Amino acid sequence: MNRPGYYDEPMNNLGAERVREVSRLATKSGRAHSGEFLAEGPQAVREALRQHLENAENNRDAVVNTIYATDDCLDRYPEFEEMAAKAKGVRSRVVSPEVLAGMADTVTPQGIVAVCRIPEISLQDVVAAKPRLVAVLCRVQDPGNAGTILRAADAAGADAFILTGGSVDIYNPKAVRSTVGSLFHLPIVTNVSLEETVEAFKNAGSTVLAADGYGATNLDTLLDATAARRAGLETPDAPDMPVLENPTVWLFGNEGAGLNEAELARADHRVAVPLYGVAESLNVGTAAAVCMYASARAQRTS
Amino acid sequence: MNRPGYYDEPMNNLGAERVREVSRLATKSGRAHSGEFLAEGPQAVREALRQHLENAENNRDAVVNTIYATDDCLDRYPEFEEMAAKAKGVRSRVVSPEVLAGMADTVTPQGIVAVCRIPEISLQDVVAAKPRLVAVLCRVQDPGNAGTILRAADAAGADAFILTGGSVDIYNPKAVRSTVGSLFHLPIVTNVSLEETVEAFKNAGSTVLAADGYGATNLDTLLDATAARRAGLETPDAPDMPVLENPTVWLFGNEGAGLNEAELARADHRVAVPLYGVAESLNVGTAAAVCMYASARAQRTS
Repeated sequence: MNRPGYYDEPMNNLGAERVREVSRLATKSGRAHSGEFLAEGPQAVREALRQHLENAENNRDAVVNTIYATDDCLDRYPEFEEMAAKAKGVRSRVVSPEVLAGMADTVTPQGIVAVCRIPEISLQDVVAAKPRLVAVLCRVQDPGNAGTILRAADAAGADAFILTGGSVDIYNPKAVRSTVGSLFHLPIVTNVSLEETVEAFKNAGSTVLAADGYGATNLDTLLDATAARRAGLETPDAPDMPVLENPTVWLFGNEGAGLNEAELARADHRVAVPLYGVAESLNVGTAAAVCMYASARAQRTS
Repeated sequence: MNRPGYYDEPMNNLGAERVREVSRLATKSGRAHSGEFLAEGPQAVREALRQHLENAENNRDAVVNTIYATDDCLDRYPEFEEMAAKAKGVRSRVVSPEVLAGMADTVTPQGIVAVCRIPEISLQDVVAAKPRLVAVLCRVQDPGNAGTILRAADAAGADAFILTGGSVDIYNPKAVRSTVGSLFHLPIVTNVSLEETVEAFKNAGSTVLAADGYGATNLDTLLDATAARRAGLETPDAPDMPVLENPTVWLFGNEGAGLNEAELARADHRVAVPLYGVAESLNVGTAAAVCMYASARAQRTS
């Protein structure tokens, strides 16, 4: 069956070197070697191709190198033929279900994967774009947590996402899946030092807030002040209180230990999500969602 | 070594029937058979014992049946001797590291587990206590998600947590771990129908809100109205808008599909967490955290 945008020859040889190369993208060394990662399943591949087409229109870097899909999948989702025909520089190949299973990390890859480029985005590029809301993960270890926080950052309208050295690799298959496509929605900087990151944003005028269960500043107090300003009322006389409407960089720490003292010391303020019940702490994903939505709310209504 | 509150005889036989019985609590049938579940690790056992002692003071049901701990763990955490000595009705036994590993679901149970009773709490009991904030999970499947949402509900000060039939078992070991002790902090009702749940809370005067990405009501609009009321300003003329300060029951749906039409139809209102970025949807845990904290904020400042 001839499919527009796809090579005529289907790929059925499970023993082919290319199958091994793609499957190696599930490992850190495989990704480091080729500078690529794998997006699996229709939703992730759709987001990758959408971003690829948008980048092409704006003369920005390619996102997708190759698409591998089964006939079944292409019958079910005709948009992948249309997108492949439009996406310049993307090779697209029909593969047998066995070959697809051999390439993919998921047990049920739902018939399609995309080999994507790991983008090269520098901290300087991100700072120069004057972002209003940025999330920084410091030594977060769980790929599912990192991916879910990236998805929440995207939802809250964050302009960039940063992982310091010692954090989980966001291009690991489980992390990629947890982002549900958000990986393609905002610039991601990896493997930078917190020192360099905080200094760059402070020099650009951003407020750096550390999410810290023991923080002296209560997030609700900041939201109260925002609401009061918005209503044109006098705000509480606290000159040293951060203003959520300002460009803000949030720091989120390791799952078990949170941010350490050295990391906390770099922030302008330590902000606690209030605990109204008996829980002694919050999951980092929960804390990040509540903090970023507080900033989004303050910035959007200001 | 004689330890106050602990049986003199350590338990070293990995082949003992009791070890198998405890290990079976990792399975649904094992839990159903004995009406017990397993809390693993110092933090979870501490929360279980704390709640057990508090219940004993208030003539409420026992929480813990048995503690198993290694000598190493009891040396490291002396409070488990003190608590065991105080906790009436709790049997406490020193076990070898091998026996503990045979009982536990985790690879590293950190030297202590508690066999706890699955509490019998009825929907009627919970409604009669006039809760201000309640979370209801409808067919949430992932134990980590369910546990994390329970922890977030606890942090936001929710008064009860409900899982409808078809939801994951919150007493499954992975779910128990994800709650980080919150399982012991608020009443939990399981395996009820959504119909019965919603009817009971509506009759008691609560507002039932469905978290729904396609909902017509924006959560930020509700928070704006709360802030305006708080500032003594005129609120927007929207008589049909829910009031976050009211006693509220939130419904959260399945990870993949969200709440279905029949479930949505039972709610008073369908409320969407605003999406400010490119993400098309939120992880159910993220949505639940943002919704419950919005209610908590409105209720606490009213």
